[in-house]
Order: sequence, then structure tokens, then C-alpha cells
Amino acid sequence: MPQHPLAAFGRDYLAIPGPSVMPDAVLRAMHRSAPNIYHGALIEMVEGIVPDLRRVARTKGHVAMYIGNGHATWEACLSNTVMAGEKVLVPATGRFGLGWADVATGLGIDAEVIDFGKSSAIDPMRVAERLSADKSHEIKAVLAVHVDTSTSFKNDIAALRAVLDDLDHPALLMADCMASLGCDPFEMDAWGVDVVIAGSQKGMMVPPGMCFVFFSDKAAEARTRMDRVSRYWDWTPRANPTAFFEYWNGTAPTHHLYGLRAALDMIHDEGIENVWRRHHLLARAVWAAVEAWGSNGPMKMNVSDPVQRGHSVTAIGIGAPHATALRDWTEQNLGLTLGIGLGMAETSDPAWHGYFRLGHMGHVSGHMVMGMLGGIDAGLKALDLPHGSGALEAASGVIAGG
Amino acid sequence: MPQHPLAAFGRDYLAIPGPSVMPDAVLRAMHRSAPNIYHGALIEMVEGIVPDLRRVARTKGHVAMYIGNGHATWEACLSNTVMAGEKVLVPATGRFGLGWADVATGLGIDAEVIDFGKSSAIDPMRVAERLSADKSHEIKAVLAVHVDTSTSFKNDIAALRAVLDDLDHPALLMADCMASLGCDPFEMDAWGVDVVIAGSQKGMMVPPGMCFVFFSDKAAEARTRMDRVSRYWDWTPRANPTAFFEYWNGTAPTHHLYGLRAALDMIHDEGIENVWRRHHLLARAVWAAVEAWGSNGPMKMNVSDPVQRGHSVTAIGIGAPHATALRDWTEQNLGLTLGIGLGMAETSDPAWHGYFRLGHMGHVSGHMVMGMLGGIDAGLKALDLPHGSGALEAASGVIAGG
Amino acid sequence: MPQHPLAAFGRDYLAIPGPSVMPDAVLRAMHRSAPNIYHGALIEMVEGIVPDLRRVARTKGHVAMYIGNGHATWEACLSNTVMAGEKVLVPATGRFGLGWADVATGLGIDAEVIDFGKSSAIDPMRVAERLSADKSHEIKAVLAVHVDTSTSFKNDIAALRAVLDDLDHPALLMADCMASLGCDPFEMDAWGVDVVIAGSQKGMMVPPGMCFVFFSDKAAEARTRMDRVSRYWDWTPRANPTAFFEYWNGTAPTHHLYGLRAALDMIHDEGIENVWRRHHLLARAVWAAVEAWGSNGPMKMNVSDPVQRGHSVTAIGIGAPHATALRDWTEQNLGLTLGIGLGMAETSDPAWHGYFRLGHMGHVSGHMVMGMLGGIDAGLKALDLPHGSGALEAASGVIAGG
Amino acid sequence: MPQHPLAAFGRDYLAIPGPSVMPDAVLRAMHRSAPNIYHGALIEMVEGIVPDLRRVARTKGHVAMYIGNGHATWEACLSNTVMAGEKVLVPATGRFGLGWADVATGLGIDAEVIDFGKSSAIDPMRVAERLSADKSHEIKAVLAVHVDTSTSFKNDIAALRAVLDDLDHPALLMADCMASLGCDPFEMDAWGVDVVIAGSQKGMMVPPGMCFVFFSDKAAEARTRMDRVSRYWDWTPRANPTAFFEYWNGTAPTHHLYGLRAALDMIHDEGIENVWRRHHLLARAVWAAVEAWGSNGPMKMNVSDPVQRGHSVTAIGIGAPHATALRDWTEQNLGLTLGIGLGMAETSDPAWHGYFRLGHMGHVSGHMVMGMLGGIDAGLKALDLPHGSGALEAASGVIAGG
Repeated sequence: MPQHPLAAFGRDYLAIPGPSVMPDAVLRAMHRSAPNIYHGALIEMVEGIVPDLRRVARTKGHVAMYIGNGHATWEACLSNTVMAGEKVLVPATGRFGLGWADVATGLGIDAEVIDFGKSSAIDPMRVAERLSADKSHEIKAVLAVHVDTSTSFKNDIAALRAVLDDLDHPALLMADCMASLGCDPFEMDAWGVDVVIAGSQKGMMVPPGMCFVFFSDKAAEARTRMDRVSRYWDWTPRANPTAFFEYWNGTAPTHHLYGLRAALDMIHDEGIENVWRRHHLLARAVWAAVEAWGSNGPMKMNVSDPVQRGHSVTAIGIGAPHATALRDWTEQNLGLTLGIGLGMAETSDPAWHGYFRLGHMGHVSGHMVMGMLGGIDAGLKALDLPHGSGALEAASGVIAGG
Repeated sequence: MPQHPLAAFGRDYLAIPGPSVMPDAVLRAMHRSAPNIYHGALIEMVEGIVPDLRRVARTKGHVAMYIGNGHATWEACLSNTVMAGEKVLVPATGRFGLGWADVATGLGIDAEVIDFGKSSAIDPMRVAERLSADKSHEIKAVLAVHVDTSTSFKNDIAALRAVLDDLDHPALLMADCMASLGCDPFEMDAWGVDVVIAGSQKGMMVPPGMCFVFFSDKAAEARTRMDRVSRYWDWTPRANPTAFFEYWNGTAPTHHLYGLRAALDMIHDEGIENVWRRHHLLARAVWAAVEAWGSNGPMKMNVSDPVQRGHSVTAIGIGAPHATALRDWTEQNLGLTLGIGLGMAETSDPAWHGYFRLGHMGHVSGHMVMGMLGGIDAGLKALDLPHGSGALEAASGVIAGG
Repeated sequence: MPQHPLAAFGRDYLAIPGPSVMPDAVLRAMHRSAPNIYHGALIEMVEGIVPDLRRVARTKGHVAMYIGNGHATWEACLSNTVMAGEKVLVPATGRFGLGWADVATGLGIDAEVIDFGKSSAIDPMRVAERLSADKSHEIKAVLAVHVDTSTSFKNDIAALRAVLDDLDHPALLMADCMASLGCDPFEMDAWGVDVVIAGSQKGMMVPPGMCFVFFSDKAAEARTRMDRVSRYWDWTPRANPTAFFEYWNGTAPTHHLYGLRAALDMIHDEGIENVWRRHHLLARAVWAAVEAWGSNGPMKMNVSDPVQRGHSVTAIGIGAPHATALRDWTEQNLGLTLGIGLGMAETSDPAWHGYFRLGHMGHVSGHMVMGMLGGIDAGLKALDLPHGSGALEAASGVIAGG
Repeated sequence: MPQHPLAAFGRDYLAIPGPSVMPDAVLRAMHRSAPNIYHGALIEMVEGIVPDLRRVARTKGHVAMYIGNGHATWEACLSNTVMAGEKVLVPATGRFGLGWADVATGLGIDAEVIDFGKSSAIDPMRVAERLSADKSHEIKAVLAVHVDTSTSFKNDIAALRAVLDDLDHPALLMADCMASLGCDPFEMDAWGVDVVIAGSQKGMMVPPGMCFVFFSDKAAEARTRMDRVSRYWDWTPRANPTAFFEYWNGTAPTHHLYGLRAALDMIHDEGIENVWRRHHLLARAVWAAVEAWGSNGPMKMNVSDPVQRGHSVTAIGIGAPHATALRDWTEQNLGLTLGIGLGMAETSDPAWHGYFRLGHMGHVSGHMVMGMLGGIDAGLKALDLPHGSGALEAASGVIAGG
């Protein structure tokens, strides 16, 4: 009997940092015939979606919805605000900050990166230094990832606003909230963020394929000075449509909209602040387990300061090739898929096999997180990887505490 | 903040001993328009279902399918084999054995119960004593529950066959495999069972609404001496239909059949013996956890001998009112529903609140069981119920071992 | 190119007299995980279903729900009211009346049939004659099919009540409304019907697998004189449960209940009287088409008097083997399945191939009926079967008229 | 009784020219949990999708898939091949040709339109004239819509290739096949088309949200001379990914891919040439009906020459305000949604209410088209709009003929 008795059965559990587990209500809402896209119920539904999206991002600002993924929002927001040849500043704390800078480069923008590596959050002081040197205000925008899905660092976006304000620097403040929207506390208006981008498939609990750009009046004003914005990326008609198709520059993503409506209902039924509390609690349970495992052996969270940890994703090092072995074991034997160590090392580097990430975003609960951790604990034991004891009870204790 | 942050979110987990967790593939298969019920694909599909059901029960015997639930099979099998005024012997080890006797009584049959209570398995010797006293062979059938869902006792069906054979007693041997079919090893033909009954909603992983009666040639022969069998219960046309509607005595349960087809595919893709091994492993993980919890405190499995424990359900005592408190806590805060202590005490008896049951049947995997146990561990801590430590790692260790 | 270009594509359309077309909302509601069957949302939902079922049957009487099909209700209602050896009177107008009598026979009841054949409705005078001869009130019940799905005759149930009342005969009046409930006007209380039976899969628009028995106080009273009623069929606990499982004599048909809830919402949102009007209009459209086709050729409705036609099914003769050829053509080329001529001739009789039936029940609309008729018209032309012209416009004219 | 008895019931039928009716198999395939997006089954599935897409477009060329709608493909293909300041030629036969030109303008491209209005197809001779005047080959591409969804004109793409070849003009030939791919015969390679664009929601039968750009080696070569292509639109990594995420420039549209897989299976099971035959037959049925209606009254197809009519959409004039009245009547009373006269007049122009369009694309069959036509016939009668008789039988006769 070479095969483990649990191979390939039971409910799959995708514990990667996006796409996240889809609620049944969302999938059910998407299982329907196509609607009339010119008038009627779909149009009314979308009119209700817009304010409900704003409530998630905590803004009274503008919303442009796109058919696209996260990378699309990077291109969308820059296409509306920064021209080729202009400069942006990108304090990066992982692959996604670097990716945003690369997209800027692809648009002909001069993207200046302050690379904080994979092991520290953005230091606002270093950003302040660079901005204060920019006397002529060549920097048109500061692009910061709120929670970088690769390293799981959470950056202090409000502190960046304070830096800009202190220096009276007019650059737009843009935040990538792909991994954090609907998971970590975020206050677009209170924190003075000009552009917020997010996707459908993480905290929003809808399959990949839709994305969102929230923008302030100041960002809208920046749009007006652009030489040209391509029709697809132009956020103005999307945020102020005079006909329904203008929301989407063409045909609407009908089925995603049904799913999104269901997801927003769930989020607002729970209450966005409760959603944040839930994610914080589940994250603390995960952290407690990882700390216990790491108390005796190589396992270690990438972010040591809990304040700098995202609440929806946890990047973990365990030494190569153990991470890959662990992920393989849980997937093959338990149907539990853990995230790869994306961006923690090059895939061609043997060290790549030493990192993995846990997604705990969106439609997750206490028993699910305990199941994920329990599966990892079984994997550590099966593979005979050194680890401290008491991890699961440390986690259940956190959940018990509420 | 009176409410727990995890209240009412994430995937529901129904960890009761049936209905069990439905596979997505089953639900998806049922989401379709109604088919032609007179000829074509549905008819061909059902022709393939029959042998695949036999392979689950390990029999070359007859199969009658019914639209009904478990209680319907009790009535079905007796209606075909025992007349009003005749006698059956019911060695009972819980509520379901008693329930079957009650159904016999409802048919005017004289049901003589040997009640083994809630704390022991059937003792074949006591059954042998009674049968040996039945010189005139008044007892037409012995009705034994394989795994009683209330107490989680598993009875030795093969031993009952040996008793009958030793005594050369002609009574039919009937086994209720509601909780065990597709979970615990069961060999209808090898063990010499004449009638096996089961439902769709436990190990078969299909919503409640269909049920199955397997019967031997000897049972078929018993049918022929009946004065009368009602049209609905008559198993002869169902097992030997000359027209498709005879399978069902009328309209077929079309959507359940699609689900059943998908479930049988999953079972036979895995292999029935692997299905048994999986359930055994998961059961041992559950048992290991409960033993650890019970090492310091009141928690205790109802069945002390592992050989007598069913592999799909575990009945547990923890002292009133803690079981109810624990179930409420996990359901309200984690969306994890544990089974009530059905049949362990009268619902009007305060002691009722001291029992609960865990279902681990059908579409379950290692991370799911770890999630269920993790949720219970959190509940024990949240409610400050005394319990031994190390339960979760005991379970993960079992799963690791395979 | 031997194959028709339209073979095997596009939406299937099952235009048989049950199972009917399932609404997407019903299928969607059934696509979900299993619920807790001991307390919570499911229990509350069922409490709301019972009164909503009553509103469909127009009664303040009792309701027993069963897991079963239509044939199950035949057995259920008789098991509660008539003992073996007693007599019932069955005025039959097709296969389903005869089937009910056969089920009575299977229960040991003396079923006396007045067979009105396949070509006439029940003549209340002949029933009156027989009942008036029954001075000793040996006849315990009159079993009448409201709309016989085989012949599509609709019988005057209120007239049978008048007969019983005029004679002061105490027999129960039972009506089989399988094909008519939720389609044809029916007034259980106003018409003085004691027992009404129906299933889930026709006017109720839910997959086959659930069925309903409505009964009056008088029928409940009849139950009390029974020697014995088997546990599964006993309607008393089902109609007056003290615990949830008593509704079902065991495990509830969870997924059917979700579907039924959705279907009842649709019916009562539309309004039951509007549901009746809709079916009447669609039936008149079908009749208009068949009359036009029949104006020049062999096609002919089985029921000549519109008052005696059911509104949900139309039986049609066209001469063997044309009906089978037509059904084959529409199914193979258009994905449109017409009903076989069930009960109009023996299947071994060549004449069997001369009959077909159209279902127009439940979730049907004007464009669907026009599509069904249009498909038939294409088939008549493709097969070169003689038929009058103008059928489709006759139908569209009816629909236009409202 | 002011309301029509058929209001708001039965199956919805969306007979607009996209989104089209979704097959149940597609929706069912999309109803599932999210998959691992880094390795495993999803990755293998996509590797099979690419060649199957090529078989639909009849090409051995390159394929880039995007998350986006039809308008996205306009921007995608131009972004890879034509620089700002360069020129394209757009022979337009309706709103969608003009829209493509507008997108080009949005990218800073000089889009020269030859407007053939709403009442004629592209005249290749006029295109030849313009191209022959372009001695310096300033025109980098000719953008032609194969079937313009607004006017339903089908243009002769092969003739445009012949023009380019005759003149030895190096411009790329681009064809918008949004409305025609998977409906009308189209031969990308045989006709020498360099770029073909299409979306998911018409002939491909998947909800809106994915789109496709097929391109030739010559177009790939044109890409290499571009100064810069933005990361999202760059087709090179999408068509030649070295890692899975490069197919999508980020996260894959997981659920659309499951739907697409199911749709491609259906298409290739039927055979693409059979798909074309089916659409042609259904289109001829629609045309026959409209001709009959128009034989006595104002109804008239926009395209008089059948050779120039698309097979998936038919634009019709009936005089204002009758089209709007008709659409309202069928939608409100039959649940049958007809397409608006998009692009046939400005919405502010009263004449707008004189046009409607019928979609007959993708998952359509003979009974569906007959249902659509039957619904229109009912509407014409209900509204007392003048129309010729015999339309429905003309259509059923076409379908009968095969």
C-alpha cells in the first residue's frame, strides 16, 4: 500500500493567498442565464453595487470597475494619472511592489524603486528623504502596496500620507490593496489615499476576472491633464457612465456581477469591521501556530513584527526543500493546497523550495483555519520535519479567546 | 463586543452522522434539467448504477432502489419477507435497532427485542441462546444494525451468521448498514447476509431521499410465501423491472440518480477498499483526540473497545450540560455543526445535554477532520471545560502515519 | 449529409407531462450543502412550507409530506383510511385511475372500477347509481383522478361531492391531483374533497422525489378506526409532528425542501389564480394549434370537449406509426422531447405508435409553448405528415389575446 | 385583469445578439471551488484550450487570451501592432466598425474611416482605391468587422485579402469576429487574416469576461517594431508563456476557463462545420419569417442580400415606435428579450424605436428559434401591428428542410 489512505478525497481546500475559497452563495448566484445588458434588473443591481464597494474601501470617492485582474488595475490607475516620461516612486516590499513598478516602466513611466527587500516594511523616513529631495515635484505618484502578497508585509499607508503632507508634496498616494481589501482594516478617505486598487478574487470572494479602482477627486483632477488615456483604461466614463455599457467600456461581466452582489451582501451583513476582526483573529491563530512550530526547528514567519503582518496571508520560511515537500504532502494526501513561496526566491534558486505562504482571506472560519493548520501539522510529522509542539492548541486557544 | 468575531462566516461544516458533506461533483450533477423518463440516457445510466451499487455492498445479489429515507427501508424489507403475526428477533444496541423493531410492530409483526442497551455491542451468545430455544423456527428474521448511529456501536454481523448456521436456523439475517455502507468494511455475500439496507445520505454522499435494499436469493424466496406485498414496497419488480418505471413503482427520482451516479464514480475511482481505509484512518484520528481530551476530564467515548466502534460516527459523553454548550459554541462561532446525542438519553432528561456525536462519513478528508477537532478544542477552551492536552497533535500524528 | 444540421444542440426542452421544466431558481436553491436536520433554519423553513402548500390546494386541512413519488401517495392515503377487505369505488378515465385501483388491490382492498375508458370523462350519474345501490355503505371511499395524465381528461370533482351529498353517502372523496395541482383550478375545501394527493414534479416544478397528501378532518377521523397503519404511511405524526423527524418518519428530504421553498415562492409571487389563468391560456394555445393541424389530416385531441380537457397535458392521436416518428424527429433534431402515448394503447400494440402527449405544466411560458408547437410543425413537414395549415398562428393569436 | 396572464413566468429567453444563451454544461462547469493557479489540473486544462481555440478560428497561428470584453480586444490588437501617430484604415458597416476606429483614436492612432453606413456591406473596390493611393504604405492595418452586430452586415474578409495582395500592400488585415466566431464560416488562415478578435459571450457560449486575439506570424513580426507595448496588452508572453501567469499577465480567469473548456467540448463534439450549418439553417428560418411578416406591412430586414447577412444576428426595421413596443411586449409577457436597435439610430432619435435585432447565436436550436419567432408573432398580433401571414410556417418549413 504505497499510497496514503487519504489521497484524493474529501473537500478540496485552497489555502493559497488568492483566489480564495468561494462562498456557495457566490457560486450559486453566478449559476444563471445571461441577463439583458441594456435595461432592467442588471442595471439596477449595478447601481447598488457601486456604493457597497465604496463602503468596503471606506471612501466617498469614485469607483471604476474593470474586467481584468490585479495587474490590470496597475495599468489602469497609472494610465489615468501619469504620462510616459514622468516619474513615480515605488517603495517596494516584495514582488508585487516590484511588479507595479514594472508595469509603470511598460507604460514608459520612470519608476524609481526604493527596494526594502523581502524582510522589512516600508520605512516612511526613507520615502520622506527621497520626496524632500524632489523639490521640483517630478514625482507624480507614490505607489505603495498595502499588504504585499509575496512577503506578507503590511505597510503603513497613513504614514506615507503624513510624509507627503509634511512635505507639502503634491504626488498622488496610490495603494495596492489586492490582498487586504475586505481583510485588513483600511480607510481610504481617513488615510488620505488617492487611488486604491483591488481585485475580485481575494477578500471580495468572487472568482478572478473583475477588478476595482477607487480614486479621489484629486486623482480625478490629475486625469484631466493627461494627453490621452486609452478607451479601455479611461476611468472617467466608468465612474460616471451616461449609458450602462460605459461602466465596462462594452459588455458587462454579467456573471461576476451576480457573484459580487452576493459577496457584498455577505460582507455588509457581517459588517466590514467584523470582517476585519475575523481576519485578525484568524491571522493571530495562524501566527500562534507558526511560532510554536518554530520554537524548535527551522520554521519562521517572514515578518517578525505582528504589526507589520498582513491579516490575510502569512509567508513562512522552513528551509529548502522542506516547503515544497510539505506543500506536496498536504496537497496529495489531504487535498489541502498551500501557497508557493512566490517572490521569496527565484524559482530556479534551490532556496525557492524553502518558502511557502498561507492564505487566510475571505470566506474562512475557525474550523477551516484549524483544518489548514492541522493538515500542516500532520505533514510536518509525516515528513519528520523538526517542529515545536503545541502549535494546534496555541491556535485553538487564540480562536477560543475570540 | 459581545459577539465572537468568527460568528456566522466561512464555509459551513456539517459534522453530524448524516446527512454528510455532499461532494461538489454530486451537487453539480444534480443541477440540471429534468430528463426523459421513458427512454434514452437516464435509462442507460440506471442500468449502470445497479451493478455499481452491488460493488459497494459486496454482493452479487438483488438490489431494489426506493424513493424514501432509512425508515422506509425498514418497512420495505419487512414488508417483503415477514407477515403480520409472525416474529422477528431484534438484538438492539441503540435507538436505531429499537426503531426497526418499532417499524416491525407497526406492520403487525411480533418484534422481540434483546436490548443490549447503549453501552455494549450485540453478544452473539445471547442471540444464540434465544435462537436455540426457537425450536419451531417461529423467528423469521434477525434484524441487526451494523453500526448504530446513536451509540456508534458496530456489531459483528458475520458472527450472527455463524450463530444461525451453527443452529441450522432458517431465519433471514438482515443488516441495517445506514451508517456503515461506504464507510466500514462490509461483505454482504461473504458474511452471508440476506438483506442489507442503506440510504443515500451518509457514506453514499447524496442528499437524503433515496434508499436501497439489497437481498439474497433466500430473501427473494421468502418473498414468494407472502400473502400480499403492497405495490410500493414490493421489491420484485424493482429488482427485475420489465419497464423503466417499475424500478421506482412510478416516476424515477431523476436528480438523485444523477447525484448517485457521480458519487458511485467517486467511490469506485477511489476503490471501495481505499474508502474503508480512509474512514478507518480518520476514525482513528478522531479517537486519538477524544482519548487525549478524556485523559484529564469528563470526555469519554461511548464505545471503549475500538473493534466495536463504527468508523463513520463517534458517540461521546462529556456530562450535562456541556455537550449542548459545546455544540452551540462551535455552531454559532465556527459554523461547525456537531451531532446531538440522539438516543443516548431522552430529550426531556437533563442528561441528554451530556452527549454529542461526531460524523466522519463520506466526503471527508484529513484537513476536514482536523478542522472539526480543532473547532472542538477551541470550544473546550472557550467554555473552560476540563480536558486533556495534546488531542490535536495526537490526531495529526495518526493522519501523518497513514 | 445524412444528419440534420440541428441534431443534438441547444437547450433541451422536456415537453412531457412530468417531470416538467425545472425553474433555474429551484435548481439553484437545491445546489447547496446539507443542513442541520435537528434545529435551525431548515426546521423554520418547513414550518413555512406547510401553509404555503395549503394555499396551493386551497384548503385549511391537514398536510402530510412524504419522500416518494405519485404512486406512493396512492398507497399512503389508502393506508390511512381503508382496511384490507373493505371496498372503494374507482371511476376511471385512464391509466392513472386504473393504477390507483391496482394499488388498492395490492393493499387487499376490494377496488371496484367503473371504467369510463379513454374517451370520456367520469359521468357522475353512473357513480350516483352505484353509490345509491350501496345501501350498507360498504364503499369507504371514491377515488377519482382530477386530470388523468394519460388521457388528459379532467373530471368534475365537485359533481362527485354533490352526488355523495345528495345520497348522504359517507364515503370519503379522494382526488388525485398529480397532473393538475398548481395548473388547473382546484378548490379542495370549497369542493368538499377529503383527500388530495400530488407530487413535486409537475405543477410544483421540483424534481421527482417528494409527494403530498392533503386530508380533511373527516379523513383524519377515518384514520382513527384503522386497525393498524404502518409507520411510514401513517399521516398523523407527519401532519402533527412533535419533533422535526416526524414530518418525514426519519431523515428529511433536505434538498427537495430547498427546491420546494423556491417553487412555492414563485407560485405565490405570481398568485395561484394567475398560475391557473396562465395554464389555461397556454392550453388554449396548444388546443388551437392541434385543431388547425387536425383540420386537414389525422391529428385529433383525445378530449373533444374543452371543458373536459386538463390544462397541463394534452393527449393527441395521429395514427400509428406517426406519433413515434414525430417524437423521434423532434427529439433527435431539435432536442424537444414529446410525451409518449402512455396508457392510450398497450406498448405491444402497433396502435401505441399513434399517440403522443404534450406537457404544458409548471414553469412554462408563451415562447416555450410556441417553441414546442413550432418544433412539432417542423416535424410534421419534415415527415410529410398531412396536417392543416395555420396552426402556429392560431396559437400565437391565442397568446396575443391573453 | 389589466395584466397579461403570461407575465413574468417560465424560462427567460435572451434573444439578443450577445450575451447568448449559456449551455447548462457551461454554467455547471463554472460552479466549483477555485483551483490551484500555480500547478496541476488548471494548467493542463489551459494547454488543451489553446489548440481547441485555434480549431474554431481555423488557424495554426498564435493565440493570446485576455480577461476583458470585446472592446478590450480592439485595444489589445492595436497596442501590439500600430504606434501612436500611425494610420489605420477602417471600412465600417455599423457601430462596431466605428467603435474600433474610436479605440484606435484613443490610442493616438490616425484612424481613417470609410463609412459604408448602415445599409451596405464593405465594397472591396473602394478599399482598393484607397489602398492603391497609399503609395508610401502609411496605412499599417485594415480593420474590418466580419459581422457587424449592429447592422448584421457580413463583410467579405477574403476579398479584402485579395485587394491587399493585388496591390502588394503590406498592411495587416484585422477582422473583428465578435459576432461571427463559432457561428459563421470563417477561415483565418485560408483567407489570409493577420489578426482575429473575438469574445467569450456569443458563439463561444461563455459569460462575458474573456476575449481572444488570434494573430499570424506577420502580425507577430509587426509587434517587434513597436517602441513599447504595455504589459497588460502585450500579446507575446500571453501567446508564448514561460510561466502560467504569463498567459494572463497575472491571475487566471479560473471560472471562465472551466466554462470555456465545456463550451469547446460542445463545439468540437458537434464539429465546427456542423456548428456553421446549424447557424445557417436557423438564420434562414429567421429570415423566412421576417420576409413573410414583411410581405404585408412595414417589417424589413436591414440587409437585403442573404449573402451579406450574418448568421447569428438579424437587424430589423419596423418603424418607430413599433420596435420598442414589440420588445416591451415580448419581454413583459413572455420573458422573451429581443435586442435593441443598437447603432441603427441615435437613442435620442425617435427613429431609434423603429429597430430591433434578433440574436440567434451559440446555444440555440430549432425549438428555441421557433419559440422566439412565435413570441414575436404573438406580439405583432397583440399590438395589432400590420404583418404578413405565414411567417411561422415559413420558418418551420426551413427547419423541416434541414
